[in-house]
Amino acid sequence: MSENVACKLIGDHLMSGEMVPGEEIAIRIDQTLTQDATGTLVMQELEALHLDRARTEVSVQYVDHNLLQADEKNAEDHEYLRTSCLRYGLWFSKPGNGVSHPTHMQRFGIPGKTLAGSDSHTPAAGSLGMLAIGVGGLEVALAIAGEPLNLRMPEIWGVELTGALPPWCSAKDVILEMLRRHGVKGGVGRILEYHGPGLETLTAMDRHVIANMGAELGATTTVFPADDAVREFLRSEGREKDFVEVVADPGAGYDLVEHVDLSSIEPLIAKPSSPGNVVAVREVAGEPVAQVVIGSSANPGLRDFAIAAAMVAGRQTLPEVSFDINPSSREIYSDLTRMGATLDLVTAGARIHQSGCMGCIGMGQAPATGRNSLRTMPRNFPGRSGTREDSVWLCSPETAAASALTGCITDPRDWAAQAGMDYPTLELPAAASVNTAMLAAPPPEEEARNIEPVKGPNISSLPDFPPLPDRIEAPVLLKVADNISTDEISPAGARALPFRSNIPKLAQFTFTQVDETYPERAAATHTSGHIVVGGENYGQGSSREHAAITPRYLGLRVVLAKSFARIHWQNLANFGVLALEFENPDDYDAIEQGDVFVLDGLRDALVAGPDLSVHDSTREVDIPVRHRLSPRQLEDVLAGGIIPKLALRERGR
Amino acid sequence: MSENVACKLIGDHLMSGEMVPGEEIAIRIDQTLTQDATGTLVMQELEALHLDRARTEVSVQYVDHNLLQADEKNAEDHEYLRTSCLRYGLWFSKPGNGVSHPTHMQRFGIPGKTLAGSDSHTPAAGSLGMLAIGVGGLEVALAIAGEPLNLRMPEIWGVELTGALPPWCSAKDVILEMLRRHGVKGGVGRILEYHGPGLETLTAMDRHVIANMGAELGATTTVFPADDAVREFLRSEGREKDFVEVVADPGAGYDLVEHVDLSSIEPLIAKPSSPGNVVAVREVAGEPVAQVVIGSSANPGLRDFAIAAAMVAGRQTLPEVSFDINPSSREIYSDLTRMGATLDLVTAGARIHQSGCMGCIGMGQAPATGRNSLRTMPRNFPGRSGTREDSVWLCSPETAAASALTGCITDPRDWAAQAGMDYPTLELPAAASVNTAMLAAPPPEEEARNIEPVKGPNISSLPDFPPLPDRIEAPVLLKVADNISTDEISPAGARALPFRSNIPKLAQFTFTQVDETYPERAAATHTSGHIVVGGENYGQGSSREHAAITPRYLGLRVVLAKSFARIHWQNLANFGVLALEFENPDDYDAIEQGDVFVLDGLRDALVAGPDLSVHDSTREVDIPVRHRLSPRQLEDVLAGGIIPKLALRERGR
Repeated sequence: MSENVACKLIGDHLMSGEMVPGEEIAIRIDQTLTQDATGTLVMQELEALHLDRARTEVSVQYVDHNLLQADEKNAEDHEYLRTSCLRYGLWFSKPGNGVSHPTHMQRFGIPGKTLAGSDSHTPAAGSLGMLAIGVGGLEVALAIAGEPLNLRMPEIWGVELTGALPPWCSAKDVILEMLRRHGVKGGVGRILEYHGPGLETLTAMDRHVIANMGAELGATTTVFPADDAVREFLRSEGREKDFVEVVADPGAGYDLVEHVDLSSIEPLIAKPSSPGNVVAVREVAGEPVAQVVIGSSANPGLRDFAIAAAMVAGRQTLPEVSFDINPSSREIYSDLTRMGATLDLVTAGARIHQSGCMGCIGMGQAPATGRNSLRTMPRNFPGRSGTREDSVWLCSPETAAASALTGCITDPRDWAAQAGMDYPTLELPAAASVNTAMLAAPPPEEEARNIEPVKGPNISSLPDFPPLPDRIEAPVLLKVADNISTDEISPAGARALPFRSNIPKLAQFTFTQVDETYPERAAATHTSGHIVVGGENYGQGSSREHAAITPRYLGLRVVLAKSFARIHWQNLANFGVLALEFENPDDYDAIEQGDVFVLDGLRDALVAGPDLSVHDSTREVDIPVRHRLSPRQLEDVLAGGIIPKLALRERGR
Repeated sequence: MSENVACKLIGDHLMSGEMVPGEEIAIRIDQTLTQDATGTLVMQELEALHLDRARTEVSVQYVDHNLLQADEKNAEDHEYLRTSCLRYGLWFSKPGNGVSHPTHMQRFGIPGKTLAGSDSHTPAAGSLGMLAIGVGGLEVALAIAGEPLNLRMPEIWGVELTGALPPWCSAKDVILEMLRRHGVKGGVGRILEYHGPGLETLTAMDRHVIANMGAELGATTTVFPADDAVREFLRSEGREKDFVEVVADPGAGYDLVEHVDLSSIEPLIAKPSSPGNVVAVREVAGEPVAQVVIGSSANPGLRDFAIAAAMVAGRQTLPEVSFDINPSSREIYSDLTRMGATLDLVTAGARIHQSGCMGCIGMGQAPATGRNSLRTMPRNFPGRSGTREDSVWLCSPETAAASALTGCITDPRDWAAQAGMDYPTLELPAAASVNTAMLAAPPPEEEARNIEPVKGPNISSLPDFPPLPDRIEAPVLLKVADNISTDEISPAGARALPFRSNIPKLAQFTFTQVDETYPERAAATHTSGHIVVGGENYGQGSSREHAAITPRYLGLRVVLAKSFARIHWQNLANFGVLALEFENPDDYDAIEQGDVFVLDGLRDALVAGPDLSVHDSTREVDIPVRHRLSPRQLEDVLAGGIIPKLALRERGR
């Protein structure tokens, strides 16, 4: 049978289940990736699992999120991560070495392999012909321990590319076009597989842009074939030996099909405050701009910085515009510097920041209230920038650089016409500035066993989570709208991120973007429990399991929503929160915050089948609901989460 | 009469008073410098003074402190400062352009001129033969308004330099030697004037290092002659036309004399947690190091970064050491990059940060608790790094770079011997990468009048301060030890600094480094008042007037101490807090926190003379005390501060 790339990758790693869309499957994981904001919990989970040594082919811990170090906590996290890597046999990428996704692609990515990462942009590695999936930290911990990754078999969505991008358009505009067409839920339950003759015009790093931000479509992942462009990329990284061709069989089909004519793309931009609010740049041209940031894993390639440098070279950004450059890795910074492009940027007024995620995760670079910030980043959820009432737009480096020069949102084609500039042909080095000195390899196992990870005073242990009770009588403490993001549930940003290793402290930030009173009201239900009611696509956004753990710590037992984002839905199950969906979405409207729900005989009802009902004792009505938990996930939820389940098993031995 | 440089500079600007040590004098101010952490209050003060246009020759507002932008507040401050500069006729140095002191030296410093700066390291400009004094923001605001600067005529301390520094020693070791000899109070009431044949071996930037950190001696300022080294510096900056020779007359004498034989200097280091804890590096060699930071206004010169780059080139810093580089200005970053040195640093594992003060002011880069951090910065007061229990050491770039490579405190001579490296001769460019595009000049006055400074939601107005009452009956709310710094009174760091424009919010941080309960206890005395008792050198450190305003806002009316640091003492008077000194320092010991003091008939007693007494009603004893206020300062204190005094005058018109 003719197979597409996605099915080849899954089939090669299938441990159980059938490759039928919607069925639960389990796949073997070859590589894992963790970043520091999620990694400290992963290390605590490895500790709880009593793991001696990582069982993957490669597991890498990056430090790219919490780089500002406003107090001792981040530095202590870094040391905890470094010493935990020594203990458990992971690679450690030193702070300053770069953002996980481009760095992993540069140094570790191998076509044909699977990658599980505790970061929602992990699919970026799909650019190399890998099956790369963003999941919760606990699932990464289990993968490191050699357990397979469970997921529902997605539909494979073939996106055929034809033609070539016009001048002043780049890969970012391709994924923005997909978001314009399909919105932030368009990819749910799907793997996007790009194919067709247009692929030839896209480098591996261009594909990274598209695969990375495919996460904003809600997709399980994005894959590209491992073809000559991938071989060329690995050659430039001094790793041609790692190249394996992975291409679709002739005549391979897809569950769904789509066509994008690259030549019809124009510069696009996502308006505040969703990556799905995409319009043509020309439609919003002229809006004043206070900040322009180039960087992040969504536009991490050398060309993304080099094109901006070429545009601003010999020109000046305006006094009222902060022009921020976040080199995505030390390697790219070095190449950019060798090219002279760093100097062009600085001379034009840029602030050059250390290599890392920085403003993309609200770690610094917060804009002024209501002032427009243009970023080449993947996300602009409300408040993610660190500013509560922010106004963040997402665009290509071309649009960003043009706007930094004019002080208002500018279609780069218009700017070029005025500046008399042809679209530059960039002379990029054939070989990258490879330097592995900031990647620390793990010691041999016998040596590792004697290493004690260093836990600073801010690093807690995981709290205990009791099993799901048979009867829940609890208030709806919060009712939220559609598309509530994990940023709104458990914020990133410079205030909250340093507490990522300390659940009781971090819990104080839960839902404060939506309702400042939630943490205090919720804590009062710590033992009795409470319920959150949500709309469509509840929990979209990042993979952070903190968005499940912290409300759970504060007493959340049930979320009733119209639908769930995949990663967060899995995280809820992993940590023993029952996710229920409305049978009739219209029932959402009548529920009021404060209604008391009763779920009686709950454990048996869940085991009996997917359909059950919730009694709203305030309004005296029954609400029909369903769960979508597999038997395995149900077991987890009943036990109070995977960790108590494993602990129970351990005790049973 | 033969005059030294300091007396020439003062004499040329004397408006009133006699140049007799200890007498109050007033001098004309030619230039001012403000940074963002103190500048927002200065702008509020200009507003309160109803100023239309700066009356100085040059006034420059820098943005170098609050660069991290964890939320909207810093970006809003920047916009407030930018638009206030337009309004009041100041130059605006954009975020990213650099640290105030080296940037001012590069672009605006002129031999023979006076400079008042709302930053305690303003004396750095003494390297150019300027009289540069760090004062409170209010005094800078008055200087911008054309008022003279009042101070007590200091003693002039001639420091004769002979010989030349040995290899692996640099200017930082010279000022550390002065601190080793004299401690953090050694310069109080004095101006240091360096002279002698050893000067020839020090460039203007070397002298900057010595003048800058002279602030740690408690000195009023430091001056160097404007000689050929200064001419050479101005030539490299494209400003030779600004050169004016300012040298001491042959045979000029000094109030005090000192001799330093440069050839006898060895690598020195200040141990935690005072710049005065200086020992030889070899005495503490071998201590493990977790962080090394090169940057700040104390080692801002191109050579300071270039020497570190030359040492680490082709080598690697250790995985457990964070190696942080803070280029001090865009110009120096550009020169460093042109030399290829930036690349050497990054390749060796450095994290390159944006140009600014960064960790020097606790704006990021906080080390882990108790882990040693080596910095080329000027200060290591407890908690200033952002980490409460920090362990910060101060040293030269040579010592810092050697230690980053070995992972422990290392005498660079020992490292060089082991590495087989001769002390490198650096090839620095003859002309600097001058680029004035990030310095925005003010518009013409008629245009400026129509500009409205943009005040974001976090920017408050100055609170009202009532006059000094005739009777104070108030508790000693806090008793503190010797050398309490302004960092301990009003902390810097990423948490507090964003509130620098918002006194009520910032007040919540007052004295929390010493006693977390102080802000709440103090706020309860908001109307009734309270007293703080201190030891020697109360208020050492930075010039921030917030350390006077915030406790004043919380009810502080009197500080009784053994002695005061000059700038803070002046700030207390400016904001209507009565500073009293023990007649018998031993009386300090018997006082207990909680004692209630009574000062009756206070206003008349202060006017009557310097000696008065405080009644401790708890212990039923009288404590003889004195004030050192000039009639002008006394007027300020009685009125409740300079601003109420000026407001009263305004009303009287």
